[in-house]
Amino acid sequence: MINIKYAKRMDFIKASEIRETLKLLSKPEMISFAGGNPDPETFPVDVINEVTSKILSEHRGNALQYSPTEGYNPLRVKIVERMKNYGVETFIDNILITSGSQQGLSLTGDVFLNEGDIVICESPTYFGAINAFKKYLPKIIDVKTEKDGIDLNELEKVLSREKNVKLIYVIPDFQNPTGNSWSIEKRKKIVDLSLKYNVPIVEDNPYIELRFSGEKLPTIKHFDTDGNVIYLGSYSKTFCPGLRIGWINAQKDILNKYIIMKQGADLQTNTLAQRQLFEFLNSYDFDSHINNIKNVYKKRHDLMIKMINDYFPKDCKYSIPNGGFFIWVELPENIDGKKLLSTSIENNVAFISGSSFYPNGQVNNYIRLSYSTMQEDKITEGMRRLGKIIKNWNH
Amino acid sequence: MINIKYAKRMDFIKASEIRETLKLLSKPEMISFAGGNPDPETFPVDVINEVTSKILSEHRGNALQYSPTEGYNPLRVKIVERMKNYGVETFIDNILITSGSQQGLSLTGDVFLNEGDIVICESPTYFGAINAFKKYLPKIIDVKTEKDGIDLNELEKVLSREKNVKLIYVIPDFQNPTGNSWSIEKRKKIVDLSLKYNVPIVEDNPYIELRFSGEKLPTIKHFDTDGNVIYLGSYSKTFCPGLRIGWINAQKDILNKYIIMKQGADLQTNTLAQRQLFEFLNSYDFDSHINNIKNVYKKRHDLMIKMINDYFPKDCKYSIPNGGFFIWVELPENIDGKKLLSTSIENNVAFISGSSFYPNGQVNNYIRLSYSTMQEDKITEGMRRLGKIIKNWNH
Repeated sequence: MINIKYAKRMDFIKASEIRETLKLLSKPEMISFAGGNPDPETFPVDVINEVTSKILSEHRGNALQYSPTEGYNPLRVKIVERMKNYGVETFIDNILITSGSQQGLSLTGDVFLNEGDIVICESPTYFGAINAFKKYLPKIIDVKTEKDGIDLNELEKVLSREKNVKLIYVIPDFQNPTGNSWSIEKRKKIVDLSLKYNVPIVEDNPYIELRFSGEKLPTIKHFDTDGNVIYLGSYSKTFCPGLRIGWINAQKDILNKYIIMKQGADLQTNTLAQRQLFEFLNSYDFDSHINNIKNVYKKRHDLMIKMINDYFPKDCKYSIPNGGFFIWVELPENIDGKKLLSTSIENNVAFISGSSFYPNGQVNNYIRLSYSTMQEDKITEGMRRLGKIIKNWNH
Repeated sequence: MINIKYAKRMDFIKASEIRETLKLLSKPEMISFAGGNPDPETFPVDVINEVTSKILSEHRGNALQYSPTEGYNPLRVKIVERMKNYGVETFIDNILITSGSQQGLSLTGDVFLNEGDIVICESPTYFGAINAFKKYLPKIIDVKTEKDGIDLNELEKVLSREKNVKLIYVIPDFQNPTGNSWSIEKRKKIVDLSLKYNVPIVEDNPYIELRFSGEKLPTIKHFDTDGNVIYLGSYSKTFCPGLRIGWINAQKDILNKYIIMKQGADLQTNTLAQRQLFEFLNSYDFDSHINNIKNVYKKRHDLMIKMINDYFPKDCKYSIPNGGFFIWVELPENIDGKKLLSTSIENNVAFISGSSFYPNGQVNNYIRLSYSTMQEDKITEGMRRLGKIIKNWNH
């Protein structure tokens, strides 16, 4: 037997607990609040069928050929137009199409991180981002995120104390996992801090389009006058995730580095998928499509909140998001989210234990519930069961 | 203006000269022997349209949803079956679907390379592989590759001299850029060396299915009894490159590391594309499809060789490949491939200068000609023009 010598990073990067959990949940009787999966009922299946046929008839083999790393130009133009909605004035040369916004995170590591560099993130934060950055063995410093966004005092303390902070990674809208959105003041001020300390911000915003209540807020990128904010967008929640389309919006010098690294990563994103998305955006009313989707999620959100009120013990605290997919529940301190998950799975209810979202140290009494995947009857039944398990907790 | 601090690797990784050149070639009057693009006429466009419609009708949103990182199981099974043709007996758990085999190369860096580790490759070799590995700032040692494969004596010298060789990267069939294929003896012996020195081999084999003459040879993986060979496969040349589907075949322990790194890189490969390929493989005669493709390329290959004989100076040497896309031409020593390229582009003929394929040092009097993209009349005209430029070279 041979003795394979892996890279050092392989000792530190673990399989995504979430994706591993999801694999266990394929039983049809399982009620899952685990995945951040959009409901496949919201995917424009027939439209995709129709536009595919149109694309292949009109463009034949060109729609299946190699294409430029930067992405399909007509799609890049559509994204430039859409970003006006986010308060961002940008240009085609500032857009790179990625294979999902996960690739945007991975390329961010490629472009910025040396071993030992510091990345600041929210605490809690999206596990997949941290995992992507870990490739380069950075030091992750997590700063508490509150109902209205990251704790800016704490953030500034870290920025003034640490010398080699390379990135600040944040999710300002319907954050994963808390569901909270940042206040407009914090969005402005983090850009000031970024300039003061000369550290770029990575704004990861896959849920922004899914606001179903509250006032629309400008992105952090909106306040960026110096090219210090790198914006990661996604069509996984508003179109469909299986086609793997996201984008990066950044100033040209930065974006060119991303393009070089994407060449090595996968040459380019699927040519047909980019054209499918373009044709959809070009031929159909995207706003009305989004409105339909939001109605679906708002109903489920409202129901899940109601069920928490009705069935969970009164000492459970929870976020009330204005959009996105997630509710973050603080359990009584004696309940460990991971143990609760084991018991729940035995009862065919699943979620993600909150500890997955803390890159350092252990905070154990949180869980993330997603209302995006299950229809209403399942939400009712699953939450009833989960409430009962929590109420009777006695481990 | 801010001062962005990039990772150190950004000083060493350059944009792919090939992809940059390809962008310049979009003029319709350009005759291009540059890209390794398959001819879009060989893509089964109507079949893809048909199977897409079937998939979306039958599986609806599930065909557009997130799916496991490992890949679509029915496709993995098809690949296991196909690999018997390559003399490889393997199992579904040994197959990971990748976003093109370029991603396989990128993940190889992720799994194996620390800064300063040594990668041995053929000289010349595929530029995109070296670029993918460079992310981790390895030392690349290139070993001369001959008509029948890498120089094994030279390879063993390097293996016995250097302590931290992590990988041997080779392309045994219709190599990029030389078009040469390894002898069966060299395929066997490199596996012995790999075991003796405990260094895994990465066998990159995107062209294997495109043999149009000579005897079929087993893969290097065929001789691998100890799980020391990592095989990278691709459907870019036999199906279509725009859908970005490749695979990795490796022993389970190694493959699991690749899966973990793929989670961080892009979560998974496009769900619909995997199903499209599966349905194509499942419903149509892949062997007869391949035979049609091979006929196209054989004709073009034969014509290009004839044109070299007819129009190039007699002191040009060239490879005569038995398959794949490329002919490697050694020019008279006074001709620099890059300068020749500039002049040719002015005359609307393009190719890739050989110097792009040497990771270290400069060998300047080679060019790579691809016969895969252009139809016969263009090959005739382009080669006539190119021959004239070379014959009259006087710079």
